[in-house]
Amino acid sequence: MRILVVNVNTTESITQAIARSAQAVAAPGTEIIGLTPYFGADSIEGNFESYLAAIAVMDRVMAYDQPFDAVIQAGYGEHGREGLQELLNVPVVDITDAAASTAMFLGHAYSVVTTLDRTVPLIEDRLKLSGLWDRCASVRASGLAVLELESDPQRALEAIVRQAELAVLEDKAEVICLGCGGMAGLDEQIRQRTGVPVVDGVTAAVTIAESLVRLGLSTSKVRTYASPRPKNIIGWPGRFGR
Amino acid sequence: MRILVVNVNTTESITQAIARSAQAVAAPGTEIIGLTPYFGADSIEGNFESYLAAIAVMDRVMAYDQPFDAVIQAGYGEHGREGLQELLNVPVVDITDAAASTAMFLGHAYSVVTTLDRTVPLIEDRLKLSGLWDRCASVRASGLAVLELESDPQRALEAIVRQAELAVLEDKAEVICLGCGGMAGLDEQIRQRTGVPVVDGVTAAVTIAESLVRLGLSTSKVRTYASPRPKNIIGWPGRFGR
Amino acid sequence: MRILVVNVNTTESITQAIARSAQAVAAPGTEIIGLTPYFGADSIEGNFESYLAAIAVMDRVMAYDQPFDAVIQAGYGEHGREGLQELLNVPVVDITDAAASTAMFLGHAYSVVTTLDRTVPLIEDRLKLSGLWDRCASVRASGLAVLELESDPQRALEAIVRQAELAVLEDKAEVICLGCGGMAGLDEQIRQRTGVPVVDGVTAAVTIAESLVRLGLSTSKVRTYASPRPKNIIGWPGRFGR
Amino acid sequence: MRILVVNVNTTESITQAIARSAQAVAAPGTEIIGLTPYFGADSIEGNFESYLAAIAVMDRVMAYDQPFDAVIQAGYGEHGREGLQELLNVPVVDITDAAASTAMFLGHAYSVVTTLDRTVPLIEDRLKLSGLWDRCASVRASGLAVLELESDPQRALEAIVRQAELAVLEDKAEVICLGCGGMAGLDEQIRQRTGVPVVDGVTAAVTIAESLVRLGLSTSKVRTYASPRPKNIIGWPGRFGR
Amino acid sequence: MRILVVNVNTTESITQAIARSAQAVAAPGTEIIGLTPYFGADSIEGNFESYLAAIAVMDRVMAYDQPFDAVIQAGYGEHGREGLQELLNVPVVDITDAAASTAMFLGHAYSVVTTLDRTVPLIEDRLKLSGLWDRCASVRASGLAVLELESDPQRALEAIVRQAELAVLEDKAEVICLGCGGMAGLDEQIRQRTGVPVVDGVTAAVTIAESLVRLGLSTSKVRTYASPRPKNIIGWPGRFGR
Amino acid sequence: MRILVVNVNTTESITQAIARSAQAVAAPGTEIIGLTPYFGADSIEGNFESYLAAIAVMDRVMAYDQPFDAVIQAGYGEHGREGLQELLNVPVVDITDAAASTAMFLGHAYSVVTTLDRTVPLIEDRLKLSGLWDRCASVRASGLAVLELESDPQRALEAIVRQAELAVLEDKAEVICLGCGGMAGLDEQIRQRTGVPVVDGVTAAVTIAESLVRLGLSTSKVRTYASPRPKNIIGWPGRFGR
Repeated sequence: MRILVVNVNTTESITQAIARSAQAVAAPGTEIIGLTPYFGADSIEGNFESYLAAIAVMDRVMAYDQPFDAVIQAGYGEHGREGLQELLNVPVVDITDAAASTAMFLGHAYSVVTTLDRTVPLIEDRLKLSGLWDRCASVRASGLAVLELESDPQRALEAIVRQAELAVLEDKAEVICLGCGGMAGLDEQIRQRTGVPVVDGVTAAVTIAESLVRLGLSTSKVRTYASPRPKNIIGWPGRFGR
Repeated sequence: MRILVVNVNTTESITQAIARSAQAVAAPGTEIIGLTPYFGADSIEGNFESYLAAIAVMDRVMAYDQPFDAVIQAGYGEHGREGLQELLNVPVVDITDAAASTAMFLGHAYSVVTTLDRTVPLIEDRLKLSGLWDRCASVRASGLAVLELESDPQRALEAIVRQAELAVLEDKAEVICLGCGGMAGLDEQIRQRTGVPVVDGVTAAVTIAESLVRLGLSTSKVRTYASPRPKNIIGWPGRFGR
Repeated sequence: MRILVVNVNTTESITQAIARSAQAVAAPGTEIIGLTPYFGADSIEGNFESYLAAIAVMDRVMAYDQPFDAVIQAGYGEHGREGLQELLNVPVVDITDAAASTAMFLGHAYSVVTTLDRTVPLIEDRLKLSGLWDRCASVRASGLAVLELESDPQRALEAIVRQAELAVLEDKAEVICLGCGGMAGLDEQIRQRTGVPVVDGVTAAVTIAESLVRLGLSTSKVRTYASPRPKNIIGWPGRFGR
Repeated sequence: MRILVVNVNTTESITQAIARSAQAVAAPGTEIIGLTPYFGADSIEGNFESYLAAIAVMDRVMAYDQPFDAVIQAGYGEHGREGLQELLNVPVVDITDAAASTAMFLGHAYSVVTTLDRTVPLIEDRLKLSGLWDRCASVRASGLAVLELESDPQRALEAIVRQAELAVLEDKAEVICLGCGGMAGLDEQIRQRTGVPVVDGVTAAVTIAESLVRLGLSTSKVRTYASPRPKNIIGWPGRFGR
Repeated sequence: MRILVVNVNTTESITQAIARSAQAVAAPGTEIIGLTPYFGADSIEGNFESYLAAIAVMDRVMAYDQPFDAVIQAGYGEHGREGLQELLNVPVVDITDAAASTAMFLGHAYSVVTTLDRTVPLIEDRLKLSGLWDRCASVRASGLAVLELESDPQRALEAIVRQAELAVLEDKAEVICLGCGGMAGLDEQIRQRTGVPVVDGVTAAVTIAESLVRLGLSTSKVRTYASPRPKNIIGWPGRFGR
Repeated sequence: MRILVVNVNTTESITQAIARSAQAVAAPGTEIIGLTPYFGADSIEGNFESYLAAIAVMDRVMAYDQPFDAVIQAGYGEHGREGLQELLNVPVVDITDAAASTAMFLGHAYSVVTTLDRTVPLIEDRLKLSGLWDRCASVRASGLAVLELESDPQRALEAIVRQAELAVLEDKAEVICLGCGGMAGLDEQIRQRTGVPVVDGVTAAVTIAESLVRLGLSTSKVRTYASPRPKNIIGWPGRFGR
């Protein structure tokens, strides 16, 4: 089984970290292919960049010319998953949904700890659209930019732990979701520090994608995610027209 | 005052019809500029095309090199408005929101009549995110594709009237919103046929944009729609990098 | 175009202030008529007075014997708008709805800052009924009585600014609505102090009423707001029976 | 114990029927006083009349010059209960709430069968404000005017039974609430015809009012229903000023 | 009229206290029978014990061999009420619902003060299922175990008062519900200390059960609470098979 | 890895069918142990039986004396999962949640097709408590009893297909969940007949349980599902006391 794990930003080192993290939990026989979009911002921290990433992720997946069995969109709270579901016949798993869905099997309420405060409403909105909001206790920001997760990992860890502790104490979260693809790999340390289960969306998404493939299930094509109708697409400087 | 009215598809004749409709209700002294995206599909009937349009609309607005006072995104139920709000300091009005917001001053519940059934969930989701869903009685599809509105206007009118009548009768709608930018201009005929107020999002958006400008109000920049942080954007084949 | 702006309390100086504020943003050619109810309390700070005001506003409007094009009910969170909508064929705009509806075009979430804590539940309930609640971050009380807004304007300003700042900081509001007709005119100062858009319901309502008239739209008469059925009304000491 | 049961319309025969119905279920020692407002419409079928009734009910209760222990507002889906709660220190029970609250002890979902379709949104809105909406399966209109309940009781019964049956069959209601004070006394016949429990708001309200008095409980005065602040009330042609 | 009041735990002294409290408010002619389950935990503070209690309460009621008119399940936030409703033809009243339903007649919002923090989500979930959640301001834990209510009543009182005060001050509760059957009898002291109405579920349930019986109303048998279908029940070590 | 799959009824042939179905999708190295409760009804079609099953499932799992890695509760819409989560340190997956959670990755809305109409409210309530309700289009009953699924499989298939078709056509479901453990194995045929993905809760639960184990995740123990406090449990005729 081959699963494409697509980063939403153009920072290659994050793609590699995500792919490593994904491969580490993959079942024997699952091949993880990390993809970096051909265009877009080096980190996604707002709607403009997220919309650009939505298209960049679709573009990158459509340009991949080998067979694959599932796609994971590895950005937390980003736009675009619905477009991929239309374009593809294989399952598409967004790490936002994967983390929340997994967390709900582990506790009565979960919180998300993400990067900058400005991204909190994006995540909340995506969780609401996905129908996974009811048991969300809070979405909290650590105050760190995406790229600081890499450049100053220890400070990042402390900031995330601090918000996770507050989520448990004040918001009554029983599970923490790591709210950024770039946080992959921190789950174990945060679990030890907070005493609650910590869900990383990337690894959760790998097991969900594998499960869907194993069960022979894929995106329903009867209505919302039906394949795009034949259209005259002009002027697009990217790859969809091929 | 100059208001940009941006079509979401690349069909120039629809842009012109929307702009005419907008100019017809504009206040004296308001100049309407109709813009057609440089790239994208000739009609938007699903998430893939809608995400592409989101970026194409931003791209087109950013390429406009004259001053302007407000922007109207003239697609019903499409993605992208939040990105425009980040990029601009002037008010941004989406016709989906404009129609619903206006309808709520006119009746206890409203329905939207749109084109294809597959676009219904998109519209529902956008209304939910916009917080305008509570008094929506239904979103109904006429079964017509966007381009059929132009090619067969009489049949389009009948199909829309039919669903509007059902919305009033069965769903208890008291107001009808025209759920497609391409329906601009049909409101009066549908009102006569159904006996309830009919709101066209384009004309509603013009008066709202004018009002916001007149009141000196524009998008809040403290959190969700703060200007994008400086980013290294690579490889984008369009115009944002300029 | 003539718009009636009806105060909900019997304090004439507040009517005048509201009317001035309304006229200041009105389009050329719009005449604002400020009306004070013939009976009722000098300020409305609870349900009893608000219900009395509901009838007093209807009574006052019905007693107005010149033609008019729209009515604005200039009380925040008060009862009665639905009755006016039944009695009239022209549009009716409540400033509670006008402010919230306008705020939602400007930010992801808004807060209302009102007078006394006891009026908070009334405002919340009206916003819920109007379907404008989903994106309300909070309704906060400044602790000032309505008439203190006039008698001690500087202290009022400080108290409102304090709550507006807390709304932005703690409740994550991105826009502030002034939650009392008597706050008309404070918007600009509060905006400067808080850095977020501030919406005054009276001026917002003027532009909405003008827009509805310009678009040829008025209250739907098919169900909830159909004209009252012919009734035998006895004993009413006011003016409805005329 | 003396309980005032206040009709919302000015039709004396309805007051008498309601009072008889109330007295029939009252505990030994409970005295039911039926009151008819001094002014208002002879039946309430919309917002204008309902707002007038709100004031008329308060006016009538305040004019009652003997001691009493509780008040029942005997109109279904009408305005005004909150005002009474402010004015009085004894418990106030609205029959809309009484019926719904009682029904929820009897089945998983309940429906309301009322008179005219135009009153359905009023009832829905009142139930939402009262927090009793979640388990409401539907509010259905029999199509009969209030006064037809008296003038043509057999036809009324058939029309109500028909909608009650549909509520059970299609909306999955397990309990029926009679949605009009004027339906008092029909419950047993409708129960026999539909096979489900039928709750009459008037009789339910009597037992609830008695219970609150017996438990020594009355309206909380700390916030929403605090006594009105001292106000200068001018011009009111009715009785509040005494 | 005979009402069974069933304790959910096996502590006989709590059963007696509950029964005394119930009898004290019962109408003349109402006989209260306190029942203690034959098996289960001596206090219920979590789901495991609560599920066991659900069955133990059903078992105990089915083993009662005299006629009775209604059953009160005297545990706050516990499982099982729906099962009793299926098994019996007489009304079943849970004290969780009774307290909330009563509180909603007294104020705009209510809070529950319960024992341990771990039981808060159980209470919240039960209130949600019962459709009585909308006007719940908060469920707060005093931090005391159920049995400490008996062993250290003064400390219990102080801890409950403290949370009740916070509920009024911070959560804007206007009424307090005592969130544990074992708190029966504390209501008057807590009311004096907090100044808001305090509802004890046991006494509220007595009046509601009496009212339902008096009105001739009982559980609807058409769907959710229809009598169990004939089943082959094997191996059950308790009493249902008799 | 060893996963216990616990039937909720006492019909051994259903346990075997469920276990076969579970083993068929299990990963290499996963051992499925099918368990039948020691007591309870031979099919669960209501609250009484479901509560009894809740305890019977806990009893049966606690009596299992070998190590295991996860538990699947294989009843659709049944009580009890929260109790198991308290008693165990390994993950607990209910097939109701597993099916819904999986379906939400496949389409915009899902429907459940279950057995008897009387079980529909139980399933709806469980989905609401689990926070998986927002995207549920409907829960539909085939009208077949649980045991008829075995005794007349062809008729069962037709009845389920019929409701699945209506769910897609009328309720706009894009995915179907099989709403009964006893339907395991029918998914492929129903998918072929309806053209939409069909999710069987048992197989979905196997992959989710395996995933949680693989990710090293289990139930959070900080609040709702903390281990039961030490209690004096008396009189219980079953096995918990050992």
